[in-house]
Amino acid sequence: MTEFSVENIYYLGPDGSNAHSAMLKFLEKCNIKAKNLKPQKDIRRAIDTLKQDYSSVCILPIENSIQGIVRETIDNLLKNEDLKIRIQGEISLPIKHLLLAKTADKNEIKKIFSHPQALAQCSNNLYKKYKDVELHDLSSTSYAAQKVAESEDCSYAAIANETCAKMFNLNILDNDLNDETDNKTRFYLLGREEIKYKNDNGKTAIILSTKNKSGALCDVLQIFKKHDINLTYIDSRPSKRKLGEYLFFMELDGFEGDYKIKMALEELMNYVDFIKILGSFCIYE
Amino acid sequence: MTEFSVENIYYLGPDGSNAHSAMLKFLEKCNIKAKNLKPQKDIRRAIDTLKQDYSSVCILPIENSIQGIVRETIDNLLKNEDLKIRIQGEISLPIKHLLLAKTADKNEIKKIFSHPQALAQCSNNLYKKYKDVELHDLSSTSYAAQKVAESEDCSYAAIANETCAKMFNLNILDNDLNDETDNKTRFYLLGREEIKYKNDNGKTAIILSTKNKSGALCDVLQIFKKHDINLTYIDSRPSKRKLGEYLFFMELDGFEGDYKIKMALEELMNYVDFIKILGSFCIYE
Repeated sequence: MTEFSVENIYYLGPDGSNAHSAMLKFLEKCNIKAKNLKPQKDIRRAIDTLKQDYSSVCILPIENSIQGIVRETIDNLLKNEDLKIRIQGEISLPIKHLLLAKTADKNEIKKIFSHPQALAQCSNNLYKKYKDVELHDLSSTSYAAQKVAESEDCSYAAIANETCAKMFNLNILDNDLNDETDNKTRFYLLGREEIKYKNDNGKTAIILSTKNKSGALCDVLQIFKKHDINLTYIDSRPSKRKLGEYLFFMELDGFEGDYKIKMALEELMNYVDFIKILGSFCIYE
Repeated sequence: MTEFSVENIYYLGPDGSNAHSAMLKFLEKCNIKAKNLKPQKDIRRAIDTLKQDYSSVCILPIENSIQGIVRETIDNLLKNEDLKIRIQGEISLPIKHLLLAKTADKNEIKKIFSHPQALAQCSNNLYKKYKDVELHDLSSTSYAAQKVAESEDCSYAAIANETCAKMFNLNILDNDLNDETDNKTRFYLLGREEIKYKNDNGKTAIILSTKNKSGALCDVLQIFKKHDINLTYIDSRPSKRKLGEYLFFMELDGFEGDYKIKMALEELMNYVDFIKILGSFCIYE
């Protein structure tokens, strides 16, 4: 497999986060050699930094199987006017939430800290098992684990992953917190240059707005159906101009260069007000 | 207009929140007389409380023009197995975010507190105008204003509405924080008994899963198109069973009892694995 060298690789930090694990998986699966690993504070900063940096890549979460689309990623991809930045690859990562604390006694816990998405993905179990415990949002699961490790208050606990338990030397008090067993997050790899190594498992991601008439979305989906293209994902995002005006984010099975995708995209032009191809890329298992 | 009496009205508190203003608007528009106004801590608790309480109603946010759908509302409506609880009405509320503080000097501000949705709806302006200020999530905008009012640290500010500025006697430092000018939130009124007063401006909300085959969503949309039904909203939610399995939340123009909606829903049965009608209701301007 050809090696793919980049200057920097940007991802949502800090170390120990799920995005950090996703980054390591991308390095391995796509055989990427990065000079520097650069954790970023948020999604907007990660994309903004990539815009200034021509020989680097960036890894961002796009969808979680419980929570749905990561709106900040879609909204920032849409706003990004640098058409050379495209999605270059996708991986999925299983997400396992653990309750971590200094104490070994669950009954001592009075406050639980974590990222809002992690708290949301455990909300049923937290409601059942820890109804009287206070929940607190923090900017990352890994920062929550660090806060618990550094605090002198033994009634604090964090929801984070196994890497964090090891990094901060915390006890695992509960490993059955995930509300749903199949909790996975998909991540995109973004960059300017196409990754040379490819498999046949490909997707094309687009964002479009339909013409403002009844049945317009139906017309768009009919084009994909006619060309026998499988729509693997659809989500609506507000246009942010007016309540009731929407953009549609879609993922299609197949590469942009495939004959049927080419034909469909061409035909689509008569039915949309706006369309942007975010990328055509491989899925790395 | 007939008066509509209920025991309790539940809404997302605390007082001063946008949900509180929405509740007051519903009382007026639908001529509801409620014995008790009962603010709730979160969406799940609001629906859970309504389930136990047969002569009450509940008000929940469903969509914001910038952020999109309120996932917790949809997911809890879907999970709710009490089929008698239905959406009874909808209103929209303009959302205006203000920067509130004890000090009158913007340059003193070092920390800004607010609800994550409010922070997200101002994120461009915050990034431009207050780049070095720390942002902190709290559970409500009104609680953020209270925290700022009660703190002795004059470098604290909150993003909240005008009601909060008055309630907590805070200065308005910035009234140009909304990233988008048309920032509105739609709210649903939920209850068991149908509101007697009606206008002609009606909608039907459904949630469905399509059969697992290529083009299945297209088939569903074609039925609406054939019956000349306008789809005003569509959003996908994860089935929470498997990454890649989705449910679709849809809003249609017209009432459930309208002939064309009846026909379409009947025809739909052959194309869906699951369907739930969340309600058929008026929009109150």
